[in-house]
Amino acid sequence: MRESVLVTGGAGFIGSHVSRHLLEMGYHVVVLDDLSGGFTENVPPGAELVVDSVMNAERIDALFAQHRFSYVFHLAAYAAEGLSHFIKRFNYNNNLIGSVNLINAAVNYQVKCFVFTSSIAVYGKGQLPMTEDLVPEPEDSYGIAKYAVEMELRVSHEMFGLNYIIFRPHNVYGENQNIGDTYRNVIGIFMNRIMQGQPMTVFGDGEQTRAFTYIADVAPIIARSVIVPEAYNQVFNVGADQAHSVNHLAEVVAGCMGVEANIQHLDPRNEVQHAFSDHEKVRRIFQLGESVPLEQGVARMAEWARRVGARESSIFGEIEIEKNLPASWRLKMGK
Amino acid sequence: MRESVLVTGGAGFIGSHVSRHLLEMGYHVVVLDDLSGGFTENVPPGAELVVDSVMNAERIDALFAQHRFSYVFHLAAYAAEGLSHFIKRFNYNNNLIGSVNLINAAVNYQVKCFVFTSSIAVYGKGQLPMTEDLVPEPEDSYGIAKYAVEMELRVSHEMFGLNYIIFRPHNVYGENQNIGDTYRNVIGIFMNRIMQGQPMTVFGDGEQTRAFTYIADVAPIIARSVIVPEAYNQVFNVGADQAHSVNHLAEVVAGCMGVEANIQHLDPRNEVQHAFSDHEKVRRIFQLGESVPLEQGVARMAEWARRVGARESSIFGEIEIEKNLPASWRLKMGK
Repeated sequence: MRESVLVTGGAGFIGSHVSRHLLEMGYHVVVLDDLSGGFTENVPPGAELVVDSVMNAERIDALFAQHRFSYVFHLAAYAAEGLSHFIKRFNYNNNLIGSVNLINAAVNYQVKCFVFTSSIAVYGKGQLPMTEDLVPEPEDSYGIAKYAVEMELRVSHEMFGLNYIIFRPHNVYGENQNIGDTYRNVIGIFMNRIMQGQPMTVFGDGEQTRAFTYIADVAPIIARSVIVPEAYNQVFNVGADQAHSVNHLAEVVAGCMGVEANIQHLDPRNEVQHAFSDHEKVRRIFQLGESVPLEQGVARMAEWARRVGARESSIFGEIEIEKNLPASWRLKMGK
Repeated sequence: MRESVLVTGGAGFIGSHVSRHLLEMGYHVVVLDDLSGGFTENVPPGAELVVDSVMNAERIDALFAQHRFSYVFHLAAYAAEGLSHFIKRFNYNNNLIGSVNLINAAVNYQVKCFVFTSSIAVYGKGQLPMTEDLVPEPEDSYGIAKYAVEMELRVSHEMFGLNYIIFRPHNVYGENQNIGDTYRNVIGIFMNRIMQGQPMTVFGDGEQTRAFTYIADVAPIIARSVIVPEAYNQVFNVGADQAHSVNHLAEVVAGCMGVEANIQHLDPRNEVQHAFSDHEKVRRIFQLGESVPLEQGVARMAEWARRVGARESSIFGEIEIEKNLPASWRLKMGK
């Protein structure tokens, strides 16, 4: 009988790719996704989709009792870092309490390893490059929630012997991304706006830099981590080495979408100016080659985006704090 | 018109003393307490008691709209550090989500300062003495939740200008403590068991040390912090300097209760062996004198405890993880 694995957020972007790789590895894959940011059509054929939220503890316990998962891949999250300041309660409920529900079940049902996608958001404005041995000092609610889950996994390992692997991916993009999300994933936002004939909006001068990472450099590593013993109870940065400015990114995206770059600059928001991670550790343990160059990854994603077409931009309904909310986000909500 | 202040957990131990000091300072005091660990009779005369939970966000918003609090003193928490491993979801809901509800309201209603009682639990097994400039690395769910709230306050100050003062008290004891709580407050547990004719139970060999702190060395400082401008947006250890072993403590408690020390050693649990904090910062900013010696503080508390008598020990109903739960806690729950 095939071993069962749980992929939360498996109808979402990274989760759908991880699910596909796990199916290829021979596992029975159960996807738990509330479809708040994911899509049924992202779930790869052969996986079993359960539509529910990680906040439903009872349902989670029932799933673990039924399937006796060998491994849990917890990718479900509302990963809108900038918006998290304004939706603190939702952020902690979804990203922390949801994770705790899964950790409880993983301990109680003796899961062999709990794989968690954290974020470079845990690092805050610290030293560059970001290395795994830095003690995180996150600077937004999203990063705090992710870091709290990381700490909780370490404590649960010590107290209950639950094995974990933590990944901190860096600005991942690619096919299956929700390009209709207004608050996150700059490359998806750019492509969606181009297809709607609108300018690409950039917060501030656009000289902030990020190491945008193509999905093929992340998802297979997450999937096979559970069969790499050296990876157990370790934290890994994962992503591209080369950082690019948002302005440069806009040029590349426009080029791949076959249009002239039309950039509209907005007021700057409270964000880290530069970010790039050290990937020596993940390269060594997973024996990785070179990562996919930006032009190549964006070209592949653009081909996909043009095929599926523009998505209507979703808005987030329940803002908890309106103070200092970027004007562009406020307008979208009709305020 | 008097300024209004909110004290969460004001029917609890530290909160009731802070409420009394705030009344003496001339404020209108609203106490929010769900009476899960507090008692109506602890609420000082003159304060207004609202019986509800910090998890009720709607009620909190309504209270802020009605009273327009100048200051918030957030002391409500379920502070059972050792038990927190086994009640992770409850811990994060009560101690983190509850805090976030208050932070949201404090931003939205322009509170002048948010005073938060964190814990030395944030430090983990790090360097001694614990100083405020160490980057915390908590080692249990309780400490993680407290640290997440600290980080959230720092972020909310930066993003929204919300002022905060964070206190990390050290093993506080004294009158009004819930001596019927089985899972926390060793001095209260000792007194309650003595009054019930039972031995004092100690995890491990009893040579673990803590700087037990009398309430009079903590509550007045918390109350007047909001009128000390140098304290704003700062973190303070607060408590006694002198650490004592749990065995020595048991001797002192027995002496003050007028009985021979009868100690029953249980299996050790996962806890920090030694803990003491540096208090230079709080002494300097608040111009403090000497703290109350252990014998003196315990004598005062013992007098109170004998007056109010033993309390029936409460049990915690909803254990989420049973694995590695100390046997003494398991028995109490009839397992």
